Amino acid sequence: MHFDHAGIATNDLDAAAELYGELFDAPVAHEEELDGLRVAFLDLGDGYFELLEPVKHATVARFLDKHGPGVHHLAVATDDIEAALETAREMGIDLIDEEPRAGAWGHEVAFLHPNDTGGVLVEFVEH
Amino acid sequence: MHFDHAGIATNDLDAAAELYGELFDAPVAHEEELDGLRVAFLDLGDGYFELLEPVKHATVARFLDKHGPGVHHLAVATDDIEAALETAREMGIDLIDEEPRAGAWGHEVAFLHPNDTGGVLVEFVEH
Repeated sequence: MHFDHAGIATNDLDAAAELYGELFDAPVAHEEELDGLRVAFLDLGDGYFELLEPVKHATVARFLDKHGPGVHHLAVATDDIEAALETAREMGIDLIDEEPRAGAWGHEVAFLHPNDTGGVLVEFVEH
Repeated sequence: MHFDHAGIATNDLDAAAELYGELFDAPVAHEEELDGLRVAFLDLGDGYFELLEPVKHATVARFLDKHGPGVHHLAVATDDIEAALETAREMGIDLIDEEPRAGAWGHEVAFLHPNDTGGVLVEFVEH
């Protein structure tokens, strides 16, 4: 497994992409709208920052209302997302996604419940 | 520049290291006590998760009181931390550290104010 990206919630994706792009010399590698979210991946060399702006996405909008903009989740890449979920299940970790689902950039993703993962919303991603 | 690590605040570093170590198959690459913090870096292949447990560290203890455990900061590595700080300064970003200082693992570090960086506590780190 290896680090894949940090997801960052924002109310203004374009402004955030410009800010981080200039600050980190990080170009936008991919952009799309998915499930009511505007999403952009900034290429940080080792991994990405994934910017998330809710257009019509209840949970990210609620996150922004509650916390303001900032880090939303950390994603770890795996070659076998089913096995990673099985490990989490065996560890007694509550799964938000019992099965992998289609995520941004055409990847398979599954989220784990932060209550069981040290307060971090963890995403497994298989490219 | 490239992603270096995500800093994760915890009340129990040993438990968190065991949890993430098992979940992500991520061994502890480095451990130390620094400025009243217990610190451990888990090797995530591309970058690290840096676990932070306050022993006598006011700001991380306050973070835990306010937010509970979870992501505390994101660190981006640079070959020239002075130049990175100068870019941030020119962008009008408020610097927590006007000059680089000694951080964990013998690296030079400097933090930027999250109010000016989209709610993310950003650390520049030069190895």
